[in-house]
Amino acid sequence: MSASLDDLPLRDDLRGKTPYGAPQAPLPVALNVNENTHPVPEEVADDILDGIAQALQDINRYPDREFTALREGFADYLGHGLQPDQIWAANGSNEVLQHILQAFGGPGRTAFGFGPTYSMYPLLTGATGAQYVSGTRGPDFSLSAADAAAQVAEVQPDVVFLCAPNNPTGTPMGLDVIEAVYEVSRGIVIVDEAYWEFAPREESSALTLLQGRERLVVSRTMSKAFAFAGARVGYLAADPALIDALRLVRLPYHLSALTQAAATAALRHAPTMLSMVDDIVSQRDRISATLSALGYTPYESWSNFVLFGGVDDPKATWQGLYDRGILIRDVGLPHTLRVTAGSAEESTAFLEALASL
Amino acid sequence: MSASLDDLPLRDDLRGKTPYGAPQAPLPVALNVNENTHPVPEEVADDILDGIAQALQDINRYPDREFTALREGFADYLGHGLQPDQIWAANGSNEVLQHILQAFGGPGRTAFGFGPTYSMYPLLTGATGAQYVSGTRGPDFSLSAADAAAQVAEVQPDVVFLCAPNNPTGTPMGLDVIEAVYEVSRGIVIVDEAYWEFAPREESSALTLLQGRERLVVSRTMSKAFAFAGARVGYLAADPALIDALRLVRLPYHLSALTQAAATAALRHAPTMLSMVDDIVSQRDRISATLSALGYTPYESWSNFVLFGGVDDPKATWQGLYDRGILIRDVGLPHTLRVTAGSAEESTAFLEALASL
Repeated sequence: MSASLDDLPLRDDLRGKTPYGAPQAPLPVALNVNENTHPVPEEVADDILDGIAQALQDINRYPDREFTALREGFADYLGHGLQPDQIWAANGSNEVLQHILQAFGGPGRTAFGFGPTYSMYPLLTGATGAQYVSGTRGPDFSLSAADAAAQVAEVQPDVVFLCAPNNPTGTPMGLDVIEAVYEVSRGIVIVDEAYWEFAPREESSALTLLQGRERLVVSRTMSKAFAFAGARVGYLAADPALIDALRLVRLPYHLSALTQAAATAALRHAPTMLSMVDDIVSQRDRISATLSALGYTPYESWSNFVLFGGVDDPKATWQGLYDRGILIRDVGLPHTLRVTAGSAEESTAFLEALASL
Repeated sequence: MSASLDDLPLRDDLRGKTPYGAPQAPLPVALNVNENTHPVPEEVADDILDGIAQALQDINRYPDREFTALREGFADYLGHGLQPDQIWAANGSNEVLQHILQAFGGPGRTAFGFGPTYSMYPLLTGATGAQYVSGTRGPDFSLSAADAAAQVAEVQPDVVFLCAPNNPTGTPMGLDVIEAVYEVSRGIVIVDEAYWEFAPREESSALTLLQGRERLVVSRTMSKAFAFAGARVGYLAADPALIDALRLVRLPYHLSALTQAAATAALRHAPTMLSMVDDIVSQRDRISATLSALGYTPYESWSNFVLFGGVDDPKATWQGLYDRGILIRDVGLPHTLRVTAGSAEESTAFLEALASL
């Protein structure tokens, strides 16, 4: 006989809540959580395995708390003259964001994001006891520098989330928006570039703005472009002083020796790991074009997914695709659905199933 | 030019703090953080590597959020009729404890432990915004049921930590103490059995008390007996309702596919992994006996370490050992030092160096 959750002295603010999480359904074509559907190439997997085999030799010891080799790998990969002391990493970018909120958020403080945006921002904020305030976007989910700065200036949040490109809409964000928001704020400004590698190559990352902005953070993840969602590796670049702040709140030895070895090895193969990005981008553009042809209204996307409007009954369309073995995501925006750009075959399967509905 | 931490809008309660952490010094004999100094046996490492190789095949996908296979592994290992829905796991037992505090601690709540005890309890508590209250122990660090219950009844904490055996003292805790504390409390009672496998075989774990006690939690780690500190795997057993509460606060996909594969494989080899435990226990007892012969006063230990008193100048003794290539721990208790029981060679090196001082 098990007790019920109501029998336990749960925190009041958690009562009645349900855990976050997309359904994990074993469908043949899973395009619901913006994974990279391309497996890690075999030669890279072999090298990762060699690194892990070495790490297993002293797995009885605590890992390097400062994940020195991994930070060097991230600094090399990001470029822009970044040094290892400007790098932080954790078990997924959610934990990276959690560390920032633990250091700069918490009770009596406020975090802010321009909705609709990544649904974990309010959850992570609330979990540290801070208040989350949601700003607004234009009708196509875009954001001008003047509008963004005005909203931030009014709220004066302690932490600002700028999702660039934005999830779940795919919307690009201009560097001018980031500069303007930084200028009017006194808090930490996080540019979440989880999907950055899928943006046009000629565009500049917010990494180019770090110099001289000690409150600016650019966060990334290996989950998407690096096809490493299962390994749980998020990271960020910022001023060394900000990294010091994160050391105050991270759990000791938060990154396992296995994670450090796997990510370090994968970074050595960055060009190979990123070779699927071009394929994915071309599938994304094909999906958008075909959706338009089918009478839907895809939003501009710099990510590995497409949000499309013009869906009369999203629940029915979602279910129709599900019944055909295709899992996409209803993110709760009226008359829209979101689909991840998969392989050519997966994208075709999605588009044909949608056309057949 | 980097900014300084004071230039950043850090939370007030973090100002002036320094990160937790034992020194990570590359000395030949490291007996300072209660690691298992025996590497994982090769046949087990091979099987772990096979499991990880398989996990790498779809590392581009998010991991099983419910870590189903791993929970089954823990339920089998712990026995006592436990089912997988009574198991939780996270990246080290610190994260397991953090999840409990996030669900049942936080602002306006109180956690309690009998000091001196594991130094992370107050840090983890404070990080969720809860207040930490320290109780007291007898002169030999032991605790009677009546004394423990009286202290808990007076404070009425929302979370009680019972470290059994206690770190950093090694002190056993009777099941009668746990029963008495549970009886008088209304909060969550955590029995931290991180070092349980080093206790005498004929003794009963707090797992025997779980039935009918929905507020009781027994936490464990693979870091010590399983020689898996580098893999960061902590776990607990409790009522299924309590597990549901932890789902509300964990980050989605908090356990990587690599961690799940490695731990699941290691658990399949539990008897082999635990084969070093007897060696370590015999070294611990030898260390205690020799320390007594040298005129020190070792405290009773059911763990893989020995706290010993009678040290006139702990800093000087620590430094003397350090200079001889041996790293042990000054845990800040007057006239004591703490040493991990290593291999026969490491224990001999420590004892001979100490005798030579």
